[in-house]
Amino acid sequence: MKLCRYGPPGAEKPGLIDAEGRIRDLSSQVGDIGPAQLGKAGLAQLAAIDPASLPLVENDVRYGPCVTGTRQFVAIGLNFVDHAHESNLPIPDEPVVFQKWVSCIHGPNDPVVIPKDSKKTDWEVELGVVIGEAANNVSEADALDHVAGYCVVNDVSERHWQTERGMTWDKGKGFPTFGPIGPWLVTRDEVGDVQSLGMWLSVNGKKVQDGNTKTMIFNVQQIVAYLSQIMTLLPGDVITTGTPPGVGLGQKPAPWYLKPGDVVELGIEKLGQQRQQFVAWEAGK
Amino acid sequence: MKLCRYGPPGAEKPGLIDAEGRIRDLSSQVGDIGPAQLGKAGLAQLAAIDPASLPLVENDVRYGPCVTGTRQFVAIGLNFVDHAHESNLPIPDEPVVFQKWVSCIHGPNDPVVIPKDSKKTDWEVELGVVIGEAANNVSEADALDHVAGYCVVNDVSERHWQTERGMTWDKGKGFPTFGPIGPWLVTRDEVGDVQSLGMWLSVNGKKVQDGNTKTMIFNVQQIVAYLSQIMTLLPGDVITTGTPPGVGLGQKPAPWYLKPGDVVELGIEKLGQQRQQFVAWEAGK
Repeated sequence: MKLCRYGPPGAEKPGLIDAEGRIRDLSSQVGDIGPAQLGKAGLAQLAAIDPASLPLVENDVRYGPCVTGTRQFVAIGLNFVDHAHESNLPIPDEPVVFQKWVSCIHGPNDPVVIPKDSKKTDWEVELGVVIGEAANNVSEADALDHVAGYCVVNDVSERHWQTERGMTWDKGKGFPTFGPIGPWLVTRDEVGDVQSLGMWLSVNGKKVQDGNTKTMIFNVQQIVAYLSQIMTLLPGDVITTGTPPGVGLGQKPAPWYLKPGDVVELGIEKLGQQRQQFVAWEAGK
Repeated sequence: MKLCRYGPPGAEKPGLIDAEGRIRDLSSQVGDIGPAQLGKAGLAQLAAIDPASLPLVENDVRYGPCVTGTRQFVAIGLNFVDHAHESNLPIPDEPVVFQKWVSCIHGPNDPVVIPKDSKKTDWEVELGVVIGEAANNVSEADALDHVAGYCVVNDVSERHWQTERGMTWDKGKGFPTFGPIGPWLVTRDEVGDVQSLGMWLSVNGKKVQDGNTKTMIFNVQQIVAYLSQIMTLLPGDVITTGTPPGVGLGQKPAPWYLKPGDVVELGIEKLGQQRQQFVAWEAGK
């Protein structure tokens, strides 16, 4: 199943993508796509619905974030060997964990605001893991039972605040609009092998990232089991699992950062794609 | 006003502390103490209620976390000069920012679970700031307008996971039960000068922390304004603002960490006190 949320910001409705790729309105069936819908029982209830029985939605609607009610937006750093190299950082022997503020969660095609005075705003295409059932101290073997599905994430990053303003990365990772997720939450059964998905990102039409989830250092099972040792993952939580090489920071001969007007497009096989125009910060917006 | 949430875990009711220190049941007036109640309008509505008109609650009820619906649990590190010294870390020239997972939020007097295999579980009495109105790019002069009130936080910390397991602190700060908050959310008007509150913590009756918010390196106004540059603070968010000297890590001649059966008591002037028994981790709990 491909689930989505569509409509104006703050007033999104739940939707389902049918076999022809059209949005069907789920609002007669569930209130939203969030923690209450993403457990096994909730997903089974949605899977039992005949999409043809649901109203068709016009095609040019806005997609909102593909899940609401996210309480923890967890991020894994340096999870691709080549990206660790381009960042001049050692290959980690266990997952590097940081957080994006949940207040940065954003629609997949909405404009992203370059922070005030920022000169180092950067992109990162990443596989997002959406939790369906709470997880604490689960084994790698059981980890995927706690996963509802997957989505595309752009882990937008401000490198100055991430690396030059103190001891933790969190400062540069969660500016408002820095967390586009979606367009769809694709359930686990529909994705199949999550460790074999092509992923790409382009800036102004030039492809800069071209990777595959098969080169992740820690796979989804390992990440979920690892995190569940140190926290309780909650339904609706999103884990963004690291980016392949090709971020702006690693461009040769010099880093390449985003400026107002730039357009970033990104996608992951089976999970859809996003498109964001980057815009200048304005006071009071 | 002193607001609280009381009753069994997960079924807390909203309450108000009257002039005699008794709990009055607010559930006929508001659904809970959370984001919808903490803005200026919500607090004004609560302040207009005559406590004597509310039902009295028996005195031996459990206190739950003093606020619900927290979406971001932000933490400031090394915010007292002497604590930076005892941690062998430089005095920061801007706030050190990390996060506690919101899933660790916990009642002020509930047992705290020492994580599986942990040998370095530690305590930190801290002033918690509860956000009332969303804040993004606010000035220091305006910052307190966005604060609903204050509470006691024990920023329970696992030092092995915090400092020996990778590049960020977040891993050691948010184990389940590591975020006792409360007993009360004391509104800003009732606290007066927040930068002049005594704070203390004892372990098994021995006082180990004895400080005052006047020695914070960055005060509440500075912290709120600083964070609002890099994120949007949301109503119900809790910022825990750093601990004075005397944590287990800094004890002489050797660090002193918590073991099952230890009792930690802590308090802040005007904000009440907490008491936690530390217990061993058990599988499946």
